[in-house]
Amino acid sequence: MGKRLLIGRKLRNTQLGETLLPKRIALPVFASDALSSVAYAPDEIFLVLSAAGVAYYTLSWKIGLCVALVMLVVIASYRQNVQAYQSGGGDYEVATTNVGSTAGLTVASALIVDYVLTVAVSISSAAQYAAAAIEPVQGHQATVAILAVVFLMTMNLRGVRESGTVFAIPTYVFIVAVFSMAIWGFFRYFRGTLPQSELAGYSIQGTQTIAGGFGSMALVFLVLRAFASGSAALTGVEAISNSVPAFRKPKGKNAATTLLLLGVIAVMMGLSILVLGNLMHVRLAEVHNGVRLVDPQGDLVPVDFHQDPLIGQLAKGVFDHFPIGFYVVAAATGIILVLAANTAFNGFPVLASILSGDGYLPRQLHTRGDRLAFSNGIVLLAGFAILLIYVFDAEVTKLIQLYIVGVFVSFTLSQTGMVRHWTRLLRTETDGAERMRMRRSRVVNSIGLSVTALVLVIVLVTKFTHGAWIAITAMAVLFFIMRGIRHHYELVASELAAGEGDTSLPSRIHAIVLVSKVHKPTLRAVAYARASRPSTLEALTVHVDDETTEQLMARWDETGLPVPLRVLASPYREITKPILEYVRDIRRRSPRDIVAVYIPEYIVGRWWEQLLHNQTALRLKSRLLFTPGVMVTSVPFQLRSSAAAEERAERELHVAGGVRRGLIRQRRRDDDDR
Amino acid sequence: MGKRLLIGRKLRNTQLGETLLPKRIALPVFASDALSSVAYAPDEIFLVLSAAGVAYYTLSWKIGLCVALVMLVVIASYRQNVQAYQSGGGDYEVATTNVGSTAGLTVASALIVDYVLTVAVSISSAAQYAAAAIEPVQGHQATVAILAVVFLMTMNLRGVRESGTVFAIPTYVFIVAVFSMAIWGFFRYFRGTLPQSELAGYSIQGTQTIAGGFGSMALVFLVLRAFASGSAALTGVEAISNSVPAFRKPKGKNAATTLLLLGVIAVMMGLSILVLGNLMHVRLAEVHNGVRLVDPQGDLVPVDFHQDPLIGQLAKGVFDHFPIGFYVVAAATGIILVLAANTAFNGFPVLASILSGDGYLPRQLHTRGDRLAFSNGIVLLAGFAILLIYVFDAEVTKLIQLYIVGVFVSFTLSQTGMVRHWTRLLRTETDGAERMRMRRSRVVNSIGLSVTALVLVIVLVTKFTHGAWIAITAMAVLFFIMRGIRHHYELVASELAAGEGDTSLPSRIHAIVLVSKVHKPTLRAVAYARASRPSTLEALTVHVDDETTEQLMARWDETGLPVPLRVLASPYREITKPILEYVRDIRRRSPRDIVAVYIPEYIVGRWWEQLLHNQTALRLKSRLLFTPGVMVTSVPFQLRSSAAAEERAERELHVAGGVRRGLIRQRRRDDDDR
Repeated sequence: MGKRLLIGRKLRNTQLGETLLPKRIALPVFASDALSSVAYAPDEIFLVLSAAGVAYYTLSWKIGLCVALVMLVVIASYRQNVQAYQSGGGDYEVATTNVGSTAGLTVASALIVDYVLTVAVSISSAAQYAAAAIEPVQGHQATVAILAVVFLMTMNLRGVRESGTVFAIPTYVFIVAVFSMAIWGFFRYFRGTLPQSELAGYSIQGTQTIAGGFGSMALVFLVLRAFASGSAALTGVEAISNSVPAFRKPKGKNAATTLLLLGVIAVMMGLSILVLGNLMHVRLAEVHNGVRLVDPQGDLVPVDFHQDPLIGQLAKGVFDHFPIGFYVVAAATGIILVLAANTAFNGFPVLASILSGDGYLPRQLHTRGDRLAFSNGIVLLAGFAILLIYVFDAEVTKLIQLYIVGVFVSFTLSQTGMVRHWTRLLRTETDGAERMRMRRSRVVNSIGLSVTALVLVIVLVTKFTHGAWIAITAMAVLFFIMRGIRHHYELVASELAAGEGDTSLPSRIHAIVLVSKVHKPTLRAVAYARASRPSTLEALTVHVDDETTEQLMARWDETGLPVPLRVLASPYREITKPILEYVRDIRRRSPRDIVAVYIPEYIVGRWWEQLLHNQTALRLKSRLLFTPGVMVTSVPFQLRSSAAAEERAERELHVAGGVRRGLIRQRRRDDDDR
Repeated sequence: MGKRLLIGRKLRNTQLGETLLPKRIALPVFASDALSSVAYAPDEIFLVLSAAGVAYYTLSWKIGLCVALVMLVVIASYRQNVQAYQSGGGDYEVATTNVGSTAGLTVASALIVDYVLTVAVSISSAAQYAAAAIEPVQGHQATVAILAVVFLMTMNLRGVRESGTVFAIPTYVFIVAVFSMAIWGFFRYFRGTLPQSELAGYSIQGTQTIAGGFGSMALVFLVLRAFASGSAALTGVEAISNSVPAFRKPKGKNAATTLLLLGVIAVMMGLSILVLGNLMHVRLAEVHNGVRLVDPQGDLVPVDFHQDPLIGQLAKGVFDHFPIGFYVVAAATGIILVLAANTAFNGFPVLASILSGDGYLPRQLHTRGDRLAFSNGIVLLAGFAILLIYVFDAEVTKLIQLYIVGVFVSFTLSQTGMVRHWTRLLRTETDGAERMRMRRSRVVNSIGLSVTALVLVIVLVTKFTHGAWIAITAMAVLFFIMRGIRHHYELVASELAAGEGDTSLPSRIHAIVLVSKVHKPTLRAVAYARASRPSTLEALTVHVDDETTEQLMARWDETGLPVPLRVLASPYREITKPILEYVRDIRRRSPRDIVAVYIPEYIVGRWWEQLLHNQTALRLKSRLLFTPGVMVTSVPFQLRSSAAAEERAERELHVAGGVRRGLIRQRRRDDDDR
């Protein structure tokens, strides 16, 4: 995340230090993901509680307090993480180093699923705010959300990237807007002029009648589910731990301070929203779960009745005398949600690069300059996000069910890693003060582990059938694919390992030039083959019909080349097979020799020209590569149209350079800084 | 067409003579296309006339007689064609040889469009007969038709081919069934027991009121349009002229006799059907043109009222006491229509091969053994046919509007060619009897030209806005694409033509081995490069990060190879660019030398394994090929999984051999046989 800052102009390896961020820029840049979750997490608490009816809305701020507590515990824990691991490997590195590769790979699978869900949830939520502010959007949120993902994908594919300021301004606007709304709201409340929500007169027909009052199992389960949904507020906290390398020195300390700031701001915003919601009697019904709003006349409202998201309802009320205020809040919220989605587009290739370096993903994802792989990653991310938005009709409350499980899998394993980290260090550390510090850190991470593990269990129990199973299945599939890829690479590496005698020279080289016509490319191939002075050299052609072969032989004689032309019979008019058999035959007769096959190729520039040429040569080449003891030499002859293509490729390389610079990533352990 | 006969077992070039056909097999094999058109052409006459109301149905047999006359003229003309041109090049060859390449290419474009339409029309018509015999099919004709095309495509892709007998039996069954129906129908008519069509009581509410009676412009136009539609009966006649090489000697004479037989049978069948239709008062309303059936109570029938095709209506009536007879007629008609569609799947690759030989289509279509190209052709043909069926909802009467224009373009240009052919021969011929024969032939072909040109004008005038413009646009697009391809090939050929000095040897070879790791493939590449004794040899690597480069250098020293390792700086972490620049630099310093780049590659077997490897090498290779003065040598190292892949490829080659044999084609001029 935030690698977008490392660009702007061409950067050499040695220039990376220049772009490190002060805290005041780092906070908005890395916090958009975490802060944006207050745009949907408080809603979820109200939505879940709606199943029991409006009476139970009073539980919302208590549940909010619990989420805030978890948030602070997680923040405290991650303050340990960022000081201990500053390489930017994040949870994946912590889990791999301290728990093992299986744990690391589990975290990686969870993170990949989370990236997809970050896009889907953030954009769906942004579409809700768009619908709140722009009436014609209502009922078309899914379409708007899908178009937004396509837009983000296009921008990222084109390599358009934002600077820190582009991130900083809307994030600060969002913070200021939400706090202004809260303060103005509380001020009006104490003056007695705070209006009610426009739906305050509505009641809610829940699906659950909590017969046994407080303490009944159904209520406990409902409260736990509300708590689990509210924990969506924690998504994005881990982003900073992936971004430590981008901080100014002392990196760890600055990152920790930023985390604390982020935590305090997020908690204050979230709680303000919850309290305001209660004061203004907002109404949110979990429609897809069978909960319905009842209007003041006692009639059920239609199922497709539009409900504004929480911040939207609040801002409409608080700024009822000043509508501009509502639009600023809605726009700032929408923008920060889109920025949060964009972080996934930046973060995913970085994670893929690290995983690829460890052999879990195709190797080409590792090279940051690999534009193709980078593009594929962006398209895949967008594709899966669109699929989710489409399937769940851009309903944030349904998508949330899938979201939180991955985050807490990652939290829990990362905290397990941290506890082990301190235990391991304590084994060798002798300095008393340092041991004390480590013990304290271990206590913090142990509390973090207990709390996140507990939340993970709650999330699993309350949300498994609601959709969490989908996320878990996806994680399992990713896990096994990545393990399979690593297994394959290990197998190949062991087959390829150099041994004794691998440097011995072949005894002789039989050179063959493939000939179909006597033209410039053929003559060039013969000349090159002759220049490499092989032990034997012959030209080879395949007889398909008498006329062509006779013509070829006559033309060959005319050239006066001191190279014999051998004609292979091909009763069934095949080209590839007789040549392969001839080559194998040479190898069979003298297995210590090698066969060098020279293939004249003419190079055209345009894609449709390529369709018209070289098909046989290409197929023959790929088949020859499967034959042991052969080397295949392409002798290119560049046609005029190829020069233009070469220029195009140069230009593309240049553009790719721009993309690549967006992916630059420093990956080294700054142990001296810990 | 009919190349399906040239298979059955592996045929060598020299065995082709064995498979020539006697007339009794050639007739059904090559005539299925032409004969099957009586299954829809008579319907079209009634359908068009319906716009003027039932009263004008009496014109149908007169129009039928005109079509029969044109048919006999065309048959007479083509009897000249098959004796003059026996190579199987058909109309394309006649037009190219005698009129010029533009005319030939026009014919070729028309034929390609016709192949697509043959599939679409025949299968749509077959679906109508299926609907007549199997009630649940009614209303789902388009779906059934599309499935049938997919079935045909699959069979042809799998290389399943029928022998002559498979064609002969259903064709004879169809002929016998239709004639039995006609004879039994006339017999019952004279006995006075011929029942009326089940719709005889219905009247038709036309769209045109012919105010001025006979002679008014509207009626003339309507009759011409009915005639143009009925001319669909002529489609398929040209098939025999493409198949002369498959006849027994004397080829030309036998083909001419078969044509005459075909013409007589088709005319008799078509006229019988028209007359029976009048006797039984069939009703066919051109619904899509606004014409409606009115039931005996005077109510309009619904638009989706199912109308059986003509032969279906007749068979239901004639065999009302013997329902089995109806099913035999319907089944035989359906089967012959499917066989007619199948001829297009066989004929298209043959035409493509000829056009490709002349440089109008990609070269790989010329080699009959090119399984890939063959498959692409089949899939394209099926795809366009399905598109047409889908767009026109499998309505034969709409598709017919597109069909006939191509056929008559081809007829007209071919007859122009024949007239010129005789004129040219007459210029040099001195023998009196022979001159007389030629003059007679020229008269026949001139009449053919006049008649087909007239029909072409009628078709264009009456059908242009009804859909013929689509066919003409498609032909124009094909024409320009093919001309562009030929132009490209000519340009390339002129660039490639060998000149003086092309055989001169380069002065020195600089060899470079690309190294990323020290493993078996690298060591093999170095060994092979050393064995080819270049003027200079060095290993080359790109510095991306310090650790990797240092490791590589240490391992390189350990190998003790007498080859220096050069490390290229890459400040922006690119791989391709520094190597390209290094190579260009060598060339710049010594332009008469060449650079040999050795690339170690390891070869894996499975497609997903290929995704995991070699991407950089592939891209580098393709970029190097654009660089002048370079030869690129792949040194493959086969991993264990590649052996299995090689076996799979061998098996595939074997299957491809089977397909290829289906495409064997003799193409030589048997002038002595004329």
